[in-house]
Amino acid sequence: MPELPAALQQLIAELGKLPGVGRRSAERMAFALLASEPDDVRPLADAVTRLHVEVGLCETCGYYTDRGVCPICTDPSRDETVLCVVEMPVDVIAFERTGGFRARYHVLGGVLSPLKGISPDDLNVAGLRKRLQNASIAEVILATSPSVEGEATAHYLSQILARDGVRFTRIGRGVPMGGSLDLADSGTLRLALEGRRAID
Amino acid sequence: MPELPAALQQLIAELGKLPGVGRRSAERMAFALLASEPDDVRPLADAVTRLHVEVGLCETCGYYTDRGVCPICTDPSRDETVLCVVEMPVDVIAFERTGGFRARYHVLGGVLSPLKGISPDDLNVAGLRKRLQNASIAEVILATSPSVEGEATAHYLSQILARDGVRFTRIGRGVPMGGSLDLADSGTLRLALEGRRAID
Repeated sequence: MPELPAALQQLIAELGKLPGVGRRSAERMAFALLASEPDDVRPLADAVTRLHVEVGLCETCGYYTDRGVCPICTDPSRDETVLCVVEMPVDVIAFERTGGFRARYHVLGGVLSPLKGISPDDLNVAGLRKRLQNASIAEVILATSPSVEGEATAHYLSQILARDGVRFTRIGRGVPMGGSLDLADSGTLRLALEGRRAID
Repeated sequence: MPELPAALQQLIAELGKLPGVGRRSAERMAFALLASEPDDVRPLADAVTRLHVEVGLCETCGYYTDRGVCPICTDPSRDETVLCVVEMPVDVIAFERTGGFRARYHVLGGVLSPLKGISPDDLNVAGLRKRLQNASIAEVILATSPSVEGEATAHYLSQILARDGVRFTRIGRGVPMGGSLDLADSGTLRLALEGRRAID
């Protein structure tokens, strides 16, 4: 294959870094952009450039926002008594997609990981502690991921933040909806057994 | 789902216009870009911006280049007697990927389409006519796509450009490599029968 122009090669390389985009997909995207009118391509460059300039993290919860405090934190119709603690801003979006959940969130910014040198000081634990001083919070749902580090983080937070009148809960773990039991790993099945509930 | 910041929404919309990228993939890419360091994202914006500024079409053949004449046209090791006529610049890349093909190309920029109002004047036919005045060209491979419009364009070009000493050929059409006969449409099977060849 003849050498492609440098700008095209750079674009293919950059697009190829995006999640789920392989070399061939990146080429296809780059060729489509090149075949478009320059005016149709400019908005993409603008959006990428504006992204980090305009979008930051909510001062209260750490979710994405282009204001100081995000729309979830300022929404008066949300349940103030429940706080859902997640690892990353995208986890907020995942929970919001479920539809019926109307609590507030707190984004840690990661999980504790001694191996990667991530200590409580590297996460937004101080902000969480401060929010728990708000008397209205009655339940903290620890929705970190069901990994060793996620479990350890949830356990750690439930210990150091324990206070009267606040219940710490952990999201349910077990076989996923539509999941096949013979494909589930033994760790998941063990969690599913531990998390069994009486049939109403 | 809460309203996402405007810059994030715009980025998701723009990424979603790329070929093969649906809403969820576009979101995943946008969130990945947002989670990256600004310095790691800037090269993508730069590459998109530079694309149309730096990459143009080869003056001779119409393939992508950032110089006046592309590396294929200036490559002295290429076979000057064979010219492969294609619709779009990406078709050149497809043929180059086959590896062994060392001819030169001519990019029309599309196919004749009375319905879309695309006439010979809208394609690079004048440039092709001029190149055929070069005495060294002995074969013109018409490699337009195997569609009604592609066939008509190939037929038209073979008629108006006919001249002594130049052979016009059409790329082989039939069942693709690895294709299953019972899945091939009847048009393809008809072409495969018409294009049958004696076994050596």
